[in-house]
Amino acid sequence: MKNFNYYNPTKIIFGKDKIKQLSSELPENSKVMITYGGGSIKNNGVYDEVIKALDGFDFIEFGGIESNPKYETLMQAVELVRDEKVDFLLAVGGGSVIDGTKFIAAATHFKGDPWDILTKNSEVKFALPLGGVLTIPATGSEMNSKGVITKSETKEKYAFDIPLVFPRFSILDPAVAASLPKIQAANGVVDAFSHIIEQYLTYDVNQPLQDRFAEGVLMTLIEEGSKYVENSADYNVAANIMWAATMALNGLIGAGVPNDWSSHRIAHEITALHNVDHAQTLAIVMPGVMSVMREDKKEKLLQFGKRVFNVVQGDEQQRIEETIEKTDAFFRSLGIKTRLSDYNLGEETINTIVQRFADRKTVLGENRNITPQKVREILNDRL
Amino acid sequence: MKNFNYYNPTKIIFGKDKIKQLSSELPENSKVMITYGGGSIKNNGVYDEVIKALDGFDFIEFGGIESNPKYETLMQAVELVRDEKVDFLLAVGGGSVIDGTKFIAAATHFKGDPWDILTKNSEVKFALPLGGVLTIPATGSEMNSKGVITKSETKEKYAFDIPLVFPRFSILDPAVAASLPKIQAANGVVDAFSHIIEQYLTYDVNQPLQDRFAEGVLMTLIEEGSKYVENSADYNVAANIMWAATMALNGLIGAGVPNDWSSHRIAHEITALHNVDHAQTLAIVMPGVMSVMREDKKEKLLQFGKRVFNVVQGDEQQRIEETIEKTDAFFRSLGIKTRLSDYNLGEETINTIVQRFADRKTVLGENRNITPQKVREILNDRL
Repeated sequence: MKNFNYYNPTKIIFGKDKIKQLSSELPENSKVMITYGGGSIKNNGVYDEVIKALDGFDFIEFGGIESNPKYETLMQAVELVRDEKVDFLLAVGGGSVIDGTKFIAAATHFKGDPWDILTKNSEVKFALPLGGVLTIPATGSEMNSKGVITKSETKEKYAFDIPLVFPRFSILDPAVAASLPKIQAANGVVDAFSHIIEQYLTYDVNQPLQDRFAEGVLMTLIEEGSKYVENSADYNVAANIMWAATMALNGLIGAGVPNDWSSHRIAHEITALHNVDHAQTLAIVMPGVMSVMREDKKEKLLQFGKRVFNVVQGDEQQRIEETIEKTDAFFRSLGIKTRLSDYNLGEETINTIVQRFADRKTVLGENRNITPQKVREILNDRL
Repeated sequence: MKNFNYYNPTKIIFGKDKIKQLSSELPENSKVMITYGGGSIKNNGVYDEVIKALDGFDFIEFGGIESNPKYETLMQAVELVRDEKVDFLLAVGGGSVIDGTKFIAAATHFKGDPWDILTKNSEVKFALPLGGVLTIPATGSEMNSKGVITKSETKEKYAFDIPLVFPRFSILDPAVAASLPKIQAANGVVDAFSHIIEQYLTYDVNQPLQDRFAEGVLMTLIEEGSKYVENSADYNVAANIMWAATMALNGLIGAGVPNDWSSHRIAHEITALHNVDHAQTLAIVMPGVMSVMREDKKEKLLQFGKRVFNVVQGDEQQRIEETIEKTDAFFRSLGIKTRLSDYNLGEETINTIVQRFADRKTVLGENRNITPQKVREILNDRL
């Protein structure tokens, strides 16, 4: 196992009717800004529940944070926070809203250009406190200090990880998933799945427990995923998916192990260029990374196949092929298409992405050996 | 899954040479009291490492916290803390030292008789901050808010759980395990194993992920346990055991699931009466609880047998018998004896314990149906 620090101070409040407890988690006398997305919370009852729970608090609202939250939108929120002297942010939504709210928290009192937080990793020395009411199990943002922000002007997408923006609390009521469209439910499962793969499918550093945990989350997503997409109003199923998605990216399974994240880096480019859903781009890219990087990932691919998909027949290459195909088939079983051509994308997109990585001199992967040329092979594999 | 709150703010600093980072984790200008046990840290080099890392800090020491830490000893420490105006406690040791230090932290500014914290669950409104340097993987105290304290005067042993006493940080350097006596290494494995069983082997509330996590920790302890007892100087093996023991009781696998803890409650009585090691008493009691409560625990016993020990042959009762025998055999394989008679205990001890539970009108177990009569059956099963 590698040396690591693990720290996660987010309080998780999980279960039925937990939104009612909101007021007891907010600092007294705070001026709250509720942030949300396109307004689905006004249709599914969550908005009303939150407003009711905020009775007695001074609060304002900022709606309209989009999927793949945009820097430009968030900077409008930052101005509002400054003008209104907001001192607590309450994100009500899925990963995009929580990601965006974290960025607002970090940017509000940042000295200098907040874009530098994303592109130059500039240190954030103060952040507004925030809490979350999760409405879509997917990204794990409810229990980590990460986020991804897109600049629409330049079609760039960047990730951040800022210890000060862990939510103080996150309320996870699985009942909120009841009204999710199937595609959002499926996207959430694939997103969580991808987070584990990035932290698990690398190489061995003698970490049997982290492997077992990662495999446990994967098996839970596989066992519950189809049921959830079929009927996200099944509370028990939604609860299992919600908890699995949170555990997939809260620092635990990645502690002390090599991390990859190449699928995300490549997938982010497709989303930034063509606005394809984050999970869909991951479903395209992941099997390609597994296939092209199969020598680097050989032992883990075999273990993944055996323990998660019960792939035990054939020689090593056959088992690896079968494992990749089962991964691809799992995504498709949820209704997520896994080929570039399914989204009318092809050579041109590949060329643009490869050029971007070449321009930035970026190499990816746990062994830092996924060159732009390898990115081309990966995407060619997914035409 | 049941509703739950999960909150664990302890920062884990894990790995080789991590004790050097100690000073950066302590609040500046704090008056520190180092607490420790019988002095093994002075032989294995940990004491010297800690003192070196504390260069520049104002600190005092309190040694002599015993295994199964005694209320009387800890109250001497409380007096010293008050006299010396200590404002940070640094526990350097195993679970007993950390448990005891948590109690010191809670008792120092407690209004009233600190014994009430243990016997009356009196609310603790303030606790001194504390940190830990773990020397024995076992209890999980390094990453939770729990502890167990014994009053030697009356031979009573009580547990507490006080949110304010989570260590601010714990340093886990697996190299410290190198000099552990075999019995302490084995005790640690059994202790961690027992913590999982108490949170896992109950009844189903639709919690597949918590089950997978629990089984992952159990499998890791089984796969690494013998190697660790054989040679705790193997860094990788010690690292896996240390991380597994921490994860076994940090709130995670117990979140949203029924908890038992009857084995602990019964085992505590044996230790309180006869000073048998905590883990040894658990190794005696656990198979008895499994056997006597087999109807309540049937589904989980079968799942435990299948997934952890690969018990798949025979009818249900045969598989349950084999699973219990494999559990017992695992403890014995580590060098831990599992029968009351192995410790020269018998009827008289059983009578005393049953009388104690009857006097307190205590019923135990996840279904609150382990009456004093059932406790007698459990202990009779372990003669």
